[in-house]
Amino acid sequence: MSEKLVKEIPPKSEDISKWYISVIRKADLVDYAPVKGMMVIKPAGYAIWENIQKILDKEFKKTGHTNAYFPLLIPESLLNKEAEHVEGFSPEVAWVTMGGSEELEERLAIRPTSESIICSMYSKWIMSWRDLPVLINQWVNVLRWEKVTRPFLRTTEFLWQEGHTAHRNKEEAMEETLRIINIYKNFIENVLAIPVIMGKKSDKERFAGAVETYTVEALMPDGKALQAGTSHYLGENFSKAFDIRYEDKDNILKYVHQTSWGVSTRLIGGLVLTHGDDNGLVIPPKVAPTQVIIIPISRGNWKESVLPVAEKVKETLENEDIRVKLDEREEYTPGWKFSEWEMRGVPLRIEIGPKDIEKNQVVLVSRVDREKRFISIEKLVDEVRKFLDDIQNSLFEKAKKFRDEHTKSTEDLEEFKKYMKEGRGFIKAPWCGDEKCELKIKEETTATIRTIGEEAKEGQKCIICGKPAKFVPFFAKSY
Amino acid sequence: MSEKLVKEIPPKSEDISKWYISVIRKADLVDYAPVKGMMVIKPAGYAIWENIQKILDKEFKKTGHTNAYFPLLIPESLLNKEAEHVEGFSPEVAWVTMGGSEELEERLAIRPTSESIICSMYSKWIMSWRDLPVLINQWVNVLRWEKVTRPFLRTTEFLWQEGHTAHRNKEEAMEETLRIINIYKNFIENVLAIPVIMGKKSDKERFAGAVETYTVEALMPDGKALQAGTSHYLGENFSKAFDIRYEDKDNILKYVHQTSWGVSTRLIGGLVLTHGDDNGLVIPPKVAPTQVIIIPISRGNWKESVLPVAEKVKETLENEDIRVKLDEREEYTPGWKFSEWEMRGVPLRIEIGPKDIEKNQVVLVSRVDREKRFISIEKLVDEVRKFLDDIQNSLFEKAKKFRDEHTKSTEDLEEFKKYMKEGRGFIKAPWCGDEKCELKIKEETTATIRTIGEEAKEGQKCIICGKPAKFVPFFAKSY
Repeated sequence: MSEKLVKEIPPKSEDISKWYISVIRKADLVDYAPVKGMMVIKPAGYAIWENIQKILDKEFKKTGHTNAYFPLLIPESLLNKEAEHVEGFSPEVAWVTMGGSEELEERLAIRPTSESIICSMYSKWIMSWRDLPVLINQWVNVLRWEKVTRPFLRTTEFLWQEGHTAHRNKEEAMEETLRIINIYKNFIENVLAIPVIMGKKSDKERFAGAVETYTVEALMPDGKALQAGTSHYLGENFSKAFDIRYEDKDNILKYVHQTSWGVSTRLIGGLVLTHGDDNGLVIPPKVAPTQVIIIPISRGNWKESVLPVAEKVKETLENEDIRVKLDEREEYTPGWKFSEWEMRGVPLRIEIGPKDIEKNQVVLVSRVDREKRFISIEKLVDEVRKFLDDIQNSLFEKAKKFRDEHTKSTEDLEEFKKYMKEGRGFIKAPWCGDEKCELKIKEETTATIRTIGEEAKEGQKCIICGKPAKFVPFFAKSY
Repeated sequence: MSEKLVKEIPPKSEDISKWYISVIRKADLVDYAPVKGMMVIKPAGYAIWENIQKILDKEFKKTGHTNAYFPLLIPESLLNKEAEHVEGFSPEVAWVTMGGSEELEERLAIRPTSESIICSMYSKWIMSWRDLPVLINQWVNVLRWEKVTRPFLRTTEFLWQEGHTAHRNKEEAMEETLRIINIYKNFIENVLAIPVIMGKKSDKERFAGAVETYTVEALMPDGKALQAGTSHYLGENFSKAFDIRYEDKDNILKYVHQTSWGVSTRLIGGLVLTHGDDNGLVIPPKVAPTQVIIIPISRGNWKESVLPVAEKVKETLENEDIRVKLDEREEYTPGWKFSEWEMRGVPLRIEIGPKDIEKNQVVLVSRVDREKRFISIEKLVDEVRKFLDDIQNSLFEKAKKFRDEHTKSTEDLEEFKKYMKEGRGFIKAPWCGDEKCELKIKEETTATIRTIGEEAKEGQKCIICGKPAKFVPFFAKSY
C-alpha cells in the first residue's frame, strides 16, 4: 500500500505539470469545480491559507493597517474612470447583467481588484490631512476571466488580500509601498521558505494604473518565475480620476498619493512547486497545519501499551503550541500511514512502537531526509522544536541553492537564447530601457523582465540594440 | 462639542429606524456603497465581525469542523436540481451572463447560499461510511437581490459562515443540527449579550429545501423579532437531488443525511439595536474591538506628568490581554473624546488627570451607567476585569428583562390583535398546525410564527379555527 501511493505520483523531474496536479489532488488540497477555471479549496489546502492569513494579518496590523470590507460588485462607470486601469482589467471581467428577473440598467463587474470601488469611497471619506494616512486592507475573493487556468497558480476566482492606502505625499506613499513589499519578502522567505528577488517592474509589466510596481519573484523548479506578490505606488492617478483631495496643513487642497498591494492563494501553488518531491507535498513547518504526525505502531496489545504513550506525547507537544495530530485509525497499517502523511507534506513524523516504549524513546523522521532518529522522551519537546527549525531552514537553503545555481548573467544575445532554451532560470542581461527591445527579447526567447534589476554599469550595452544600457534586469519565462 | 455630538443622534425611543442609521453611520461602522443595497463595512464595523469570526470559528473547530472554500459562481443547472431550493432562491439571484467580452452559454448565479455547489462536490467526495461525517464550513460573501435593504440587517451582499455537513443517518444529522443551534444560542447570549428564543420553524417559514429548520430569534427594542441564526436538517432532499450516496458497513448504498447552518453580519445589526442608546453604540466587552479607552486629562504639563502614567496603564492592561487604546490626540478636548468614544460604544473609559496621579488613582467610567468610580492603580487590572464582566452581564440582563416583559401569552384573537397593535414583542398563542391559520394570523396581525414553540396542552384550542391546538408558537413581526 505504501509503495503504491508513492508510485501514483509521476516524477517531479519528468513532467512538473503532471506532478503538480497529481500532488495537489492527492494531498487533498484542491478539487475542480463545475465551473471552468474555478477550484474548490479543500480543508487541507484552506488550512494553509488560514495560516498564511494569520501570520500576514498580524504583520499588517502591527504596521497600523485595519481590515474592512468593500462590495463585490462594481458599476461599469466606476471601473471606467481610470483609463489605464480599465484597459488592463476589462477584458477579464465577469459581468452581472440581471438581478432576480430584472435586467440591470448598468452592468456590474465582479471585482477583478478593488481600486475603483475603494477610491470612490475614499473620495467621500478623506477631507483633511487629519484623515491621513488611510491604511485599509481586505481579505476577499476576486474574479478574473482567465483562458488558461491551473489550480492556485491561475484561477478564474481566487482569494487574496488587497491593501489600499492613501497618503499626504509621494514620500509617505513610497515608504508604504516599500514597507509592504518588504513584509512580503520576509514572509515568503522566512515563513514559506521560498527565496525571492525583489525589485521594480518595467513600464510594460507594471500594474494597470500604477506609477511604479514593486514585485517579489520566486524561481520555480521548472525555471519559470512566479510573481508572488506586488506592491504598487499609484501616485495621483486614481486620486485625480476619483477626485480624492484633502485640505493640507497649509489650507491648500491636494490630491492624495496612493498605494495598493496584494498576495493571493497563488502562494500555495508556489509552496507546492518549490518544496514538493516525488513522495508528495512538503509543507514548511511555520505554515504547516499539522507540524507533527504521531503514528503508533499497531502491534500486539498496542492499544493498552503504545496508544496511551502516544496520547501523552501528543498532549505534551500540544501544550507547547506545536500543531500535532495522532493517527490512531485501525483500518490502516503504519506503513500506509507513513506514505499518506508524507504525501500530505507533514514535516515531522513520530513513530512509537512497543520497543520504543521499553527504551523510553520515540522515533523521529523528518519529511526532508526521511532518516530515523531515536530520541529519548525527556528531550522530546526540545528535539521536535530543533527539527522543525532545521526543516524550515533546510527547505529555504535548498530552494536558494537551486535559485542561485539557476541565475546566469550574460551580455550576449546568443548565449541568452541558449540559456533560455537549454537551461532554466533567471538571466541577468543589460537593457537600454526601451520597450521595443523588451518586446524583441520576449519574441525571440519568450523571457520577460521580472524586475528591472540594478542600474547598469558604465559601458554596459543593451543586449538587443547595443545602445548604452540603463538596467540589468532579471529575465525569465513566467507563470 | 460633547453636547453637540449627542444631540445629533435622534432619540432611540422616538424613531428607532432613524436612530439606527444615525448610530451606525456616526460610530463609523458602515457606509453606503455606489451599488443599491450594498454596504461598505468600515474598519470599526469589520473589527466586530473579526471578533465574531474568531470566537465562533474556535467553537466550530472544537466540534470537529474544518474550513474550506467553494466557488462564488453556481451554474444555473446546478441551482435547479433541488426543486424547493431553486424556487426559494431564484427570485433573488444575481446572474453573470458575460465573461470578458463573451456571452456565456449558461448563466452563472452568484451564490445566494452554497448547498447546490457543495452538494455537487460531496457527490464526488463521499463514497464510503469511512468518509463520513463530512464537517465543512466556509466564511464567505453571498448575494441576494433584495428590494428593501438596511445596513447589516438586510443587504444585497452580506458576509456569513455557512456550514455544510453530511452524515450516515438521521440521528447523527439531527444531533449536528442541534449541536450547532446550541453553539449559536450560547454565542449570541454569552458573547453578544442578546437573549434568544430557540426553536423550530413552521413548514412555511423553514429554509427552502430543508426538512426542519431550527432558529434562534432575538427580540429587538421595537418589538420585532430578528432571526439571528438558523440550522437546518436537510434530510435526504439534497443527497437525492445530487446523488450523494455512500456504501455503509452493511455494503448497502445509502443517501447521506445533511445539515446546513449559518450566521451573518446581520448579528452586528442585532447588537447595535439591542444595546445602543441615545449616546450611541454600546458594544458588549467580549466582542468589543476596544474594551477600554484611556483618556488623559490634557491640562498643564500633562505630557510630562499624565501621559507617562497613561502609557503605563495601557501597557499593564495590554499585558493582561485586555484590548485597550490610548487617545492622546491634542486636537481634541477630553470632553469631546468622552462623547466620541461613548458613541463608538467602548464599554469602559479610564480618565487620568493630574489630581488622580497625586492620589495614585484613575477614574473608571462604565458606558452603561456612566458613573465615575475612583480606583487605586494597584487594583486596576482586577477592577477593569470586574467591570467588563459586570457590563457584559448587565447588558444581557437588561435585554432579557425587556424580552421577558414583552412576551405575552393569550388564547384570544382580539387580545392578540390588541397586543400586536399597542404592545410590541413576542406573543405565545395556541395553533392547530395548519398553514391556513398561520396565513390568516399574518394577514390580520402582520405577525409570523418565529418558532413553533412547545406542544400545546390538552384542551388548548387554535386561536384562529378553534380546533385542537398542536403547538404554542412564538409569534412576532419580523425584520
